[in-house]
Amino acid sequence: MERQYDLVIIGSGPAGMSASIYASRAGLKTAMLDLGAPGGKLNKTSEIANWPGILSGSGMDLANAMFEHATAFGSEYIYGNVVKVVDGETHKTVICEDGETYRAKAVIVASGTKERTLNIPGEEANVGRGVSYCAVCDGAFFKNREVAVIGGGNAALEEAEYLTQFADKVYIVIRRDVFRADQIVQDRIITNSKIDIIRCHVPRRIDDDGTRVTGIVIADVNTQTETTLNVQGIFPYIGQDPATDFLADLDVLDEHGYIKVDANCETTCHGIYGAGDVIVKPLRQVVTAVNDGAIAAQHAFHQVRGI
Amino acid sequence: MERQYDLVIIGSGPAGMSASIYASRAGLKTAMLDLGAPGGKLNKTSEIANWPGILSGSGMDLANAMFEHATAFGSEYIYGNVVKVVDGETHKTVICEDGETYRAKAVIVASGTKERTLNIPGEEANVGRGVSYCAVCDGAFFKNREVAVIGGGNAALEEAEYLTQFADKVYIVIRRDVFRADQIVQDRIITNSKIDIIRCHVPRRIDDDGTRVTGIVIADVNTQTETTLNVQGIFPYIGQDPATDFLADLDVLDEHGYIKVDANCETTCHGIYGAGDVIVKPLRQVVTAVNDGAIAAQHAFHQVRGI
Repeated sequence: MERQYDLVIIGSGPAGMSASIYASRAGLKTAMLDLGAPGGKLNKTSEIANWPGILSGSGMDLANAMFEHATAFGSEYIYGNVVKVVDGETHKTVICEDGETYRAKAVIVASGTKERTLNIPGEEANVGRGVSYCAVCDGAFFKNREVAVIGGGNAALEEAEYLTQFADKVYIVIRRDVFRADQIVQDRIITNSKIDIIRCHVPRRIDDDGTRVTGIVIADVNTQTETTLNVQGIFPYIGQDPATDFLADLDVLDEHGYIKVDANCETTCHGIYGAGDVIVKPLRQVVTAVNDGAIAAQHAFHQVRGI
Repeated sequence: MERQYDLVIIGSGPAGMSASIYASRAGLKTAMLDLGAPGGKLNKTSEIANWPGILSGSGMDLANAMFEHATAFGSEYIYGNVVKVVDGETHKTVICEDGETYRAKAVIVASGTKERTLNIPGEEANVGRGVSYCAVCDGAFFKNREVAVIGGGNAALEEAEYLTQFADKVYIVIRRDVFRADQIVQDRIITNSKIDIIRCHVPRRIDDDGTRVTGIVIADVNTQTETTLNVQGIFPYIGQDPATDFLADLDVLDEHGYIKVDANCETTCHGIYGAGDVIVKPLRQVVTAVNDGAIAAQHAFHQVRGI
């Protein structure tokens, strides 16, 4: 059965929830589709530091507060793994993996990004057996153990610091000899006695004993000399790719798969919008995601109502 | 004496405070200049409804939380009424009315907007004697009295509703026969027995007894028939103009005085940025202000550090 809405929002991270608040307060019949818990990457963030007004707090608490807000004015949250968006003449159709379809006058795509994998032997086979892309979700499994974080950006360093609550030792493996992360984050890392920084190295192979991860082999980028870190946990934080496979048939993506939008967050398909990490933009943060969601929703409102 | 900073932010509303958080966390020596209390328009907003995660809260509480955050990483808050920004070859100079000057490698202008006046007889003479542009600041003075709100946008209707806590009767005078405000806001207004809506009327003259406002004369836009509302308070909410007089010498403003910026929130003057309500943009909200502040600060960081 096809369900009808004024607006369907794909994704329930900060961008989707901001869009939901604006659209439902404006009176649009709105649904948010997501294949995970509402909150998006907030749920994978141990500590929120850049959300104005919250000096220190958990990503999950902020996600919960935003979700309460996003559904307070009638917007529905629906489980759905979107596989296709059809841009029809009179309406858009959003098709989910389970066969459910949603007809809408406007669609906001706020599906975010998914973690990039290391693409080395032993990685895929050990997901859930020592390899994790979410320190917040899985960190507690590594109490009194040793773990490695791969990457040198803010996310990598913040999650490395978070992991020191549990692990005895956290290695941070970075390709270059400098970090990309903010100075304030670096300063905390460098003074943390549980953290060892291994510079100018790249991951080569993940070893296991048939049940669990036993270590990771890393190589010096200059000499190619290999070293094994005997760790039980491996957390790659090397970047993201946009979750836009379901838009492949529409001419709205750039060469990396990010959605191209105008100043109103609208794509070249009239009535289809992009918001949050999934769009082409200079800075991917909660503050920029909520901006996009609000702008897209406001514009969608005028489009749907014809005013 | 000239004080030196990496970054000077003009304005301490949500845009300026977001910029302050991002810049100071990144390690820039940062100052925020403002001629009022930190928080900008948040301080004049009775209830915040569109800030994701806060279903209901006062603007002042959010302003206080953001200010604590904005100054937690070393950024300074300084009183200053900026009268000029000079775009020098090696640095920018920000000059205040009291003669204080600040030298900076980058400047973010987040000075917001100021309320538009009605420009009718009796208005200017009665500011503080019954005419107010801030219901939150002055509403409590009108307990058991009658007041008029002029305007039909979200701000007008929300402040009218706020005023019903104090006043016995709140008239809303709008020029058209429909509101510009969101449906959900309209719905609450229409069911509020203390509120009377007067459509298709414009304000003509404010009367007083030499000490205080005694009424406002309004005219029917079709028949020109005049009516007097015997109110003791008058709250114009008819829009804003950008606070950018101090930028008049730089070629960065549009014909309405708003700052033109690119996708990085930078003006055509390298190192001078705009953020928040003061820039040309489709939607002026707290969520869009914090977006601009973060983007400008991030870009200023790379510019100042040369990375």
